[in-house]
Amino acid sequence: MLNFNLHFPTRICFGRGKIEELGREISRYGNKVLLVYGQGSIKRNGLYEQVLQIFRDNSIAHVEVSGVQANPRISSVRQGAELCKKNDIHLVLAVGGGSTIDCAKIIAAGAGYEGDPWDFFTGRARISHALPVGAVLTLAATGSEMNSNAVISNDETAQKLGTASSALIPRFSILDPEYTFSVPPAQTAAGTIDIMSHVFEQYFSPTPDTFIQDRLAEAMLKTCIHYGPIAMAEPDNYEARANLMWAGSLALNGLLKAGKHTDWATHGIEHEISALYDVTHGLGLAILTPHWMRYVLDSRTAPQLAEYARNVWNLEGEEMALARAGIEKTAEFFKSLNLATSLSAIGVEENRLAEMAVKATSGGALGSFKKLEYQDVLNILQAAYAG
Amino acid sequence: MLNFNLHFPTRICFGRGKIEELGREISRYGNKVLLVYGQGSIKRNGLYEQVLQIFRDNSIAHVEVSGVQANPRISSVRQGAELCKKNDIHLVLAVGGGSTIDCAKIIAAGAGYEGDPWDFFTGRARISHALPVGAVLTLAATGSEMNSNAVISNDETAQKLGTASSALIPRFSILDPEYTFSVPPAQTAAGTIDIMSHVFEQYFSPTPDTFIQDRLAEAMLKTCIHYGPIAMAEPDNYEARANLMWAGSLALNGLLKAGKHTDWATHGIEHEISALYDVTHGLGLAILTPHWMRYVLDSRTAPQLAEYARNVWNLEGEEMALARAGIEKTAEFFKSLNLATSLSAIGVEENRLAEMAVKATSGGALGSFKKLEYQDVLNILQAAYAG
Repeated sequence: MLNFNLHFPTRICFGRGKIEELGREISRYGNKVLLVYGQGSIKRNGLYEQVLQIFRDNSIAHVEVSGVQANPRISSVRQGAELCKKNDIHLVLAVGGGSTIDCAKIIAAGAGYEGDPWDFFTGRARISHALPVGAVLTLAATGSEMNSNAVISNDETAQKLGTASSALIPRFSILDPEYTFSVPPAQTAAGTIDIMSHVFEQYFSPTPDTFIQDRLAEAMLKTCIHYGPIAMAEPDNYEARANLMWAGSLALNGLLKAGKHTDWATHGIEHEISALYDVTHGLGLAILTPHWMRYVLDSRTAPQLAEYARNVWNLEGEEMALARAGIEKTAEFFKSLNLATSLSAIGVEENRLAEMAVKATSGGALGSFKKLEYQDVLNILQAAYAG
Repeated sequence: MLNFNLHFPTRICFGRGKIEELGREISRYGNKVLLVYGQGSIKRNGLYEQVLQIFRDNSIAHVEVSGVQANPRISSVRQGAELCKKNDIHLVLAVGGGSTIDCAKIIAAGAGYEGDPWDFFTGRARISHALPVGAVLTLAATGSEMNSNAVISNDETAQKLGTASSALIPRFSILDPEYTFSVPPAQTAAGTIDIMSHVFEQYFSPTPDTFIQDRLAEAMLKTCIHYGPIAMAEPDNYEARANLMWAGSLALNGLLKAGKHTDWATHGIEHEISALYDVTHGLGLAILTPHWMRYVLDSRTAPQLAEYARNVWNLEGEEMALARAGIEKTAEFFKSLNLATSLSAIGVEENRLAEMAVKATSGGALGSFKKLEYQDVLNILQAAYAG
């Protein structure tokens, strides 16, 4: 186990009707809010009007950025940061999924920065402070509601890049599983796989003796495998939605990576796909993950992949065969969620795979469980293209 | 799953040599510290001198309360609270195990209270504020380093009572597994069982559909079962000590109880034993737990006890038989750690069992997994007495 520092500053308000605590949480930070939301689903389901009523009841003034996209654009960030500066905003409130929260985070950082917020992604500027961020979550997937990360896309440069700072961690997050009842099956599947992928990226690691972290990771994987199909079949099954929502937050709040080297190669590759094609992140991960697993399997990584097969899928067998069986179980599970299983099926063009592999490895090899150079990434992309 | 609010304000500094961050952590709160420690083991292993050097290097003034006992006494609390008032202390630093941290917490609350700190336990006063508390942990057991709880004994009234307040949660905790290398096998066993008991008290619950919490609980139980015996046999096995230390913090920081009713009957009974006999808490729990499990087993509780047997001990079988097998595995495991297995063996007198049962249920029935009235508690105590 490696040394680590860990701090979870987010106040979690979890459960039915917890929106009633929104006014109190905001009031810890002030009374001028920038409300950030997406494509209007919160207007259709009544949440928008509920939030506005809470603003009125608590004498909270607000301005808005709406239309945040599934892969949030730097243009929305720029617009929000300007509004914060003009209106002397005290808190940026995201109401939506991970994309909306990511966008709100960088708006909050941009509010106190004179330059262009894209600088935070190119390395030209570091985020050392930000306005407080709060979140009302409507999708179980990214874990952004409890962590320091944000991923933003730039259409002009065809880049999708991430950054992280403890200043970005939401001060509070309201997690009401009922808000995810209206998430359609395909998006529920993509969200479930996004959560599983976050766990995989931290579970498969070269760091030895991380027993407790690994058992915690398996707990979250089992939760996704158990409840993902239930939430797809019964969209308003509260317990399924609640377990998935809490798994999403716990999977990427720092708990699983504490004391370990992490991998993140699959995410690195997927970001290049969704930068070019605006693919749903979880769908891209679903296609890539089994191919990544097959590619990294060797005599050195087999023990951990076999342990995964044994502890998560209850399989038995000789180590290498067991590892392979666990990988195929994973692929079967993803397929059972009715998601596409090849990059070709989602419109990715074969002649752009090399370009993605170049960009994915432009900062050096990906991953730590097994280091992946350009040719490795291209091999994985080609296998995922064929499916 | 029930609604919940959750907040982990403690900054965790985990690993070898993390004491080097102590000066920086203290300096967030001021430069006048009350140092609280126990029976002097930190003087023998050099930690005391190391802490004093850090105080000197960071211009931190300090006064001391030493001699805090394994079941910390209200007399130490009173002494510490007085010192805080007299010396305008900014932070109370506990260096030791859970008892020392518990003592430091109530000192910190008492520092801002005009009356007697025992009032916090009798219900005469509520803790709404306290000086900041920091901890350097030297024993993996109670989880006090990351939670709001404190248990204090009062010799005059022969009471051992607990209280909790978010104001008591340590602002930072330094967790260096090497500090636990010198913990002798019997105490290592007691600490491991204390951790397991904290998990049991939250794992066995009448709340349905707490899948993720239950899998997380099993992760922690497996960690204790795997590493407890290793840490006893190889006291300086870093990985065993590290996994146990982190399990101890995670087992009682709020994560496992979030969304559930919890039980705490076994702890309630054990507190009456150690209030009268100054028994090591984990030893008392080791004796009581299998008897509690046997007593609460019925057709309603069998499914959960069977799930425990299946998921933690990898047993199979028909539900009631499986539940019984899991309980006996638990008893065997505790026995394998060379701890006493009956109350008679540790000097408890049979003619005081009724008195303990009366006191344990003086506030009403214990537990939620199965409610225990006076006669139930007495039955468990009698079974545990015989062993």
